[in-house]
Amino acid sequence: MPRYRLTIEYDGTPFVGWQRQANGRSIQQALEEAAERFSGERVRIGGAGRTDAGVHAWGNVVSFDAEADDVDLVTVQRHLNAMLGPAIVVRSAEVAPPGFDARRSAIARRYRYTVLNRPVPDPFLAAFTWHVPDPLDLAVLRLACDPLLGEHDFTSFCRVPRGAADYSMVRRVAEARWLDLGHGLLRFEIEASSFCQQMVRAIVGTMVAMGLGRRRAGEMAGIVRARRRAAADRVAPPSGLCLWSVTYPDLVSG
Amino acid sequence: MPRYRLTIEYDGTPFVGWQRQANGRSIQQALEEAAERFSGERVRIGGAGRTDAGVHAWGNVVSFDAEADDVDLVTVQRHLNAMLGPAIVVRSAEVAPPGFDARRSAIARRYRYTVLNRPVPDPFLAAFTWHVPDPLDLAVLRLACDPLLGEHDFTSFCRVPRGAADYSMVRRVAEARWLDLGHGLLRFEIEASSFCQQMVRAIVGTMVAMGLGRRRAGEMAGIVRARRRAAADRVAPPSGLCLWSVTYPDLVSG
Repeated sequence: MPRYRLTIEYDGTPFVGWQRQANGRSIQQALEEAAERFSGERVRIGGAGRTDAGVHAWGNVVSFDAEADDVDLVTVQRHLNAMLGPAIVVRSAEVAPPGFDARRSAIARRYRYTVLNRPVPDPFLAAFTWHVPDPLDLAVLRLACDPLLGEHDFTSFCRVPRGAADYSMVRRVAEARWLDLGHGLLRFEIEASSFCQQMVRAIVGTMVAMGLGRRRAGEMAGIVRARRRAAADRVAPPSGLCLWSVTYPDLVSG
Repeated sequence: MPRYRLTIEYDGTPFVGWQRQANGRSIQQALEEAAERFSGERVRIGGAGRTDAGVHAWGNVVSFDAEADDVDLVTVQRHLNAMLGPAIVVRSAEVAPPGFDARRSAIARRYRYTVLNRPVPDPFLAAFTWHVPDPLDLAVLRLACDPLLGEHDFTSFCRVPRGAADYSMVRRVAEARWLDLGHGLLRFEIEASSFCQQMVRAIVGTMVAMGLGRRRAGEMAGIVRARRRAAADRVAPPSGLCLWSVTYPDLVSG
């Protein structure tokens, strides 16, 4: 019985997020239904990044087992894409290495958050950016990155999952930086072993408050140390966030 | 009483097209309602390009009259954008030259049609392209451009407007070319004095049939000469089409 690994791209706008939920259609549900129609079996799919409602992915990775083992991978990819519709695409399909689990085998995740920082909005970018009309100070945004690097308890930026009181919020951030893409587009890139819930959006929301002059970049170290969600700012909207890539010992997905 | 000229960008996906209609929300209706809420007057807005349902614009141009003449243009633009929501944006606002009419004063319109030509679709581009999975022969697409140049009766590519039996389909095409943008993106650009209904989409639909090898590029001259809609192919989907710019004696909008 082969285990498959898929690299998945999606426009998160119409979905309730990765995880199956009662209140709407999730990425997981759409993928499982497509895989079940293709294989004729009950399929359970695990994902490396359990993205929130409205969050996008360029390189999320999922794995699942299927009985049929005489099917070539191009056919798997083509059939899934034919059934998934335009908002989710299987970018590649492989047979997974032995013991592979999309979530537990991942050694790093990289997210991108894109801000459109100019007075006039852009309808073509509305679904994939956060429009911030007032000018952001890029030097301030960059100063606020340093205190995030390394291993910290990120409770100040995380929502505690329901029924998980002893859940650890300690994460190791390997990279955090802001890029100026021109045309008013500013992009935050962050890589870590893993992220807790809403962590990137709370970090960006807090940094943007600093970039607008409502808070000082010098506060960031203290906000991390506070380990209280109330110390940081509100979350940035999901539209700007994209799970860019997931790293495994044998693969980078993005 | 000043006349205003606005350059308008929109994601056409959620709209029934430019023109007011009973079966849904149009760009015209959204703009008129925003202008009326701003000015407190009844406003009637005319557009240079009366785009079909689902067609986008980067540089459509509209004009309207308003009583209030002590309002600065930045305020007009900002208020309209605040009321329009994310799918329509006023990119610029000006006082129009004397006698200006967005539709009648225009001397040229330029459309872009973008095809994503690769096996795997792309969710981020789905709303702004036509996904053609089988390979297109770019040389064939380019050959099919020549017979369109100059003044012709384009009846083979146009839908006759209702109640307009003596409507002329003669148009002058100044430019028609295909560009290879890389990453599987192919773009058709066409400029003409004006276009009749569905003209660009019927031209692209016919060219794509040629690029796929279902028809020969050599047929294009005969299709133009035939002056029968049935001589050409089906229309390409609206998602790939964008009204790029409108040219006036004093302005190019794009």
